[in-house]
Amino acid sequence: MIKRNPNLNLLKTSYLFPEVTARRKQFLAKRPGAQILSLGIGDTTEPLSPLVVEALAMAAKRLGSMEGYIGYGPEQGIEPLRKKIASVFYDGRIAPEEIFISDGAKCDIGRLQVLFGGDLSVAIQNPAYPVYIDGSLIQGIRNIHMMCCSPENGFFPDLHALERTDLIYFCSPNNPTGAAASRSQLEALVSFARENRSLILFDAAYASYIRDSALPKSIYEIPGAKEVAIEINSFSKLAGFTGVRLGWTVVPETLKYQDGASIQSDWNRIYTTLFNGASILSQYGGLAALEKNGLEESERLTHFYLENARLIKAALQSLDIEVYGGDNAPYLWAHFPGRRSWDIFQELLEKTEIVSTPGSGFGSAGEGFLRFTAFGKRDHILSAIQRLRTIKSEKGSSFKFAMV
Amino acid sequence: MIKRNPNLNLLKTSYLFPEVTARRKQFLAKRPGAQILSLGIGDTTEPLSPLVVEALAMAAKRLGSMEGYIGYGPEQGIEPLRKKIASVFYDGRIAPEEIFISDGAKCDIGRLQVLFGGDLSVAIQNPAYPVYIDGSLIQGIRNIHMMCCSPENGFFPDLHALERTDLIYFCSPNNPTGAAASRSQLEALVSFARENRSLILFDAAYASYIRDSALPKSIYEIPGAKEVAIEINSFSKLAGFTGVRLGWTVVPETLKYQDGASIQSDWNRIYTTLFNGASILSQYGGLAALEKNGLEESERLTHFYLENARLIKAALQSLDIEVYGGDNAPYLWAHFPGRRSWDIFQELLEKTEIVSTPGSGFGSAGEGFLRFTAFGKRDHILSAIQRLRTIKSEKGSSFKFAMV
Repeated sequence: MIKRNPNLNLLKTSYLFPEVTARRKQFLAKRPGAQILSLGIGDTTEPLSPLVVEALAMAAKRLGSMEGYIGYGPEQGIEPLRKKIASVFYDGRIAPEEIFISDGAKCDIGRLQVLFGGDLSVAIQNPAYPVYIDGSLIQGIRNIHMMCCSPENGFFPDLHALERTDLIYFCSPNNPTGAAASRSQLEALVSFARENRSLILFDAAYASYIRDSALPKSIYEIPGAKEVAIEINSFSKLAGFTGVRLGWTVVPETLKYQDGASIQSDWNRIYTTLFNGASILSQYGGLAALEKNGLEESERLTHFYLENARLIKAALQSLDIEVYGGDNAPYLWAHFPGRRSWDIFQELLEKTEIVSTPGSGFGSAGEGFLRFTAFGKRDHILSAIQRLRTIKSEKGSSFKFAMV
Repeated sequence: MIKRNPNLNLLKTSYLFPEVTARRKQFLAKRPGAQILSLGIGDTTEPLSPLVVEALAMAAKRLGSMEGYIGYGPEQGIEPLRKKIASVFYDGRIAPEEIFISDGAKCDIGRLQVLFGGDLSVAIQNPAYPVYIDGSLIQGIRNIHMMCCSPENGFFPDLHALERTDLIYFCSPNNPTGAAASRSQLEALVSFARENRSLILFDAAYASYIRDSALPKSIYEIPGAKEVAIEINSFSKLAGFTGVRLGWTVVPETLKYQDGASIQSDWNRIYTTLFNGASILSQYGGLAALEKNGLEESERLTHFYLENARLIKAALQSLDIEVYGGDNAPYLWAHFPGRRSWDIFQELLEKTEIVSTPGSGFGSAGEGFLRFTAFGKRDHILSAIQRLRTIKSEKGSSFKFAMV
């Protein structure tokens, strides 16, 4: 038979989240009655807003009528949604034609990786969402520079120490560290990219969690970014569309290759060749989520999750654990210096039946960290906090968790 | 800035369907009042069945409730749908775990191309759906063998003349020729793949149009296919899901690389890394479409389009045009020997305001052909037939269409 794509040999055997699921299953097999609470995978738990449900049902109904039926939509997305996104999120900085509607950020990152291919160098934050590195390896990219983001540098890479690369993946608010880059940090990043003629792939999937009005919600708030940045975004954490599937990517017309040719034109070619558009239903659902009332609902939703984050953060801090993030992001990044992430993961699971995500799964600089997510039903969060309090009482006992 | 992915230089400037759209726009600019009828792009026009609409609306409602909400589904699709597809289409030959639910055949073809990478040889039918060749070029594959499928060989490649390749794309019922391969032809194909240790990518997106009970609807009806074939399928033409987005790919557990490693395991890695599953709504819609009543609706739908095909075929034949396909496929393949496809396309557009698809857009062996699709509202089809009749009266005049 055929040979395996050699690039796949570069991948580690197991992808982080399936491994977490496997560990959870193993644990349940060992302790069948366990009442597991997950603060692990970044999966939304609050229902869709009634407005969105109504819009989805209406769209379905339209597709069931002779007059309302449409088949393939434009691969780039329906015009009203592209216009709406341009006006709601970009305030005239971005034209509707520069917005491409996707079935989610992850899928578009994969397509961007296909667009740029394997013959280039990339810089990736360490720790980072695993798809940046895994997708790069699948393309055969060997020239990968890791940008360490730790408490020591305020989770922002030391740019002066960074070699020039073709692409720079940058996620803010960050998954997994919860760090939201400041305006001056993003200015430095854009300026670095302009000097080095690098292209930034800016993942803004958690921008709707920013509450500090001084922090930019889009890379395009930084002057000059339109010549050096693509922005990826999503309805998943903005409006609970994780299962509905909807996102968007901004590819400005001003982005050019070395020879002056248009990057957007190639992106459009990839889109029309390998994609058939997001579900029409999801697109109408997304449109409703961006109406005035929809945005208010979304604000309530992200506020609810941020309140979860605050509760978990306080509980962890009461155990004298250093915790980062959670103020402008749905992620908390808890530090256990000197411990190994999978060990703390396992210990926490066995002591409290709480599932977290091992920081080391996001890169070597995540070793010694656990990621907690703010997604979850409130009663689950409160139960988890109760269990964490129990640990506190064991402080100084065999539970190494709180002994550090 | 960065350099362009050199693989993209291999692509022709314009993708077939956008070019058809551009020509149509140009024509409308020239003749603003034109009443264009499209028999061109393979896009469904009949509404979703009430059963499916109900299921979509119910799924939306569930996602709007605390109890019913789910976030990310499994990337591979929800279990009830995988089971249903296994039982409805594969009669126990394929296990639910071998079925991966996608957001459509096109997208999964793209992901299969990412899976196998650029370092291999492929065979592609000529003519063929452009995504096979374009997607292969995007991966950097240079070693592409075209398998001519023409009236002379009954639209089935001359396998004895074919060099061994790693992958063989094969679409039946075929887009664009409308040819549905016989059991003995598929047996020959599977046997060829087994002898040559090639992997068949079998595109069965139009299988639900097969009416001749002697014709296989799945490659897995052929003994031995499970060791050499992946099958790609879709709800688009089966149940009008072109805008809803849903499909599936079968990757049997028995498929192995040269070294005995599992292809399915790598496919699962690609799925979990670069995809987040089809929309949950679409999946519940698909489940309804495969219930007993749903399948009856689907039967009615495909019957309706096949009746369109019969009408168009008869009208073209009455102009003494040789027409293939349309009996077990929603595509008609009309032959205009000695003419160039884009010329006939343009002439037809100008004389009748009917949009077709130039056969040459599907490969060099499509030169001299036009593809007509059976999708369309019945009154449009009848109007188109009326216009074609008008041509007939001009036979022998300046209209070269009917002069051949």
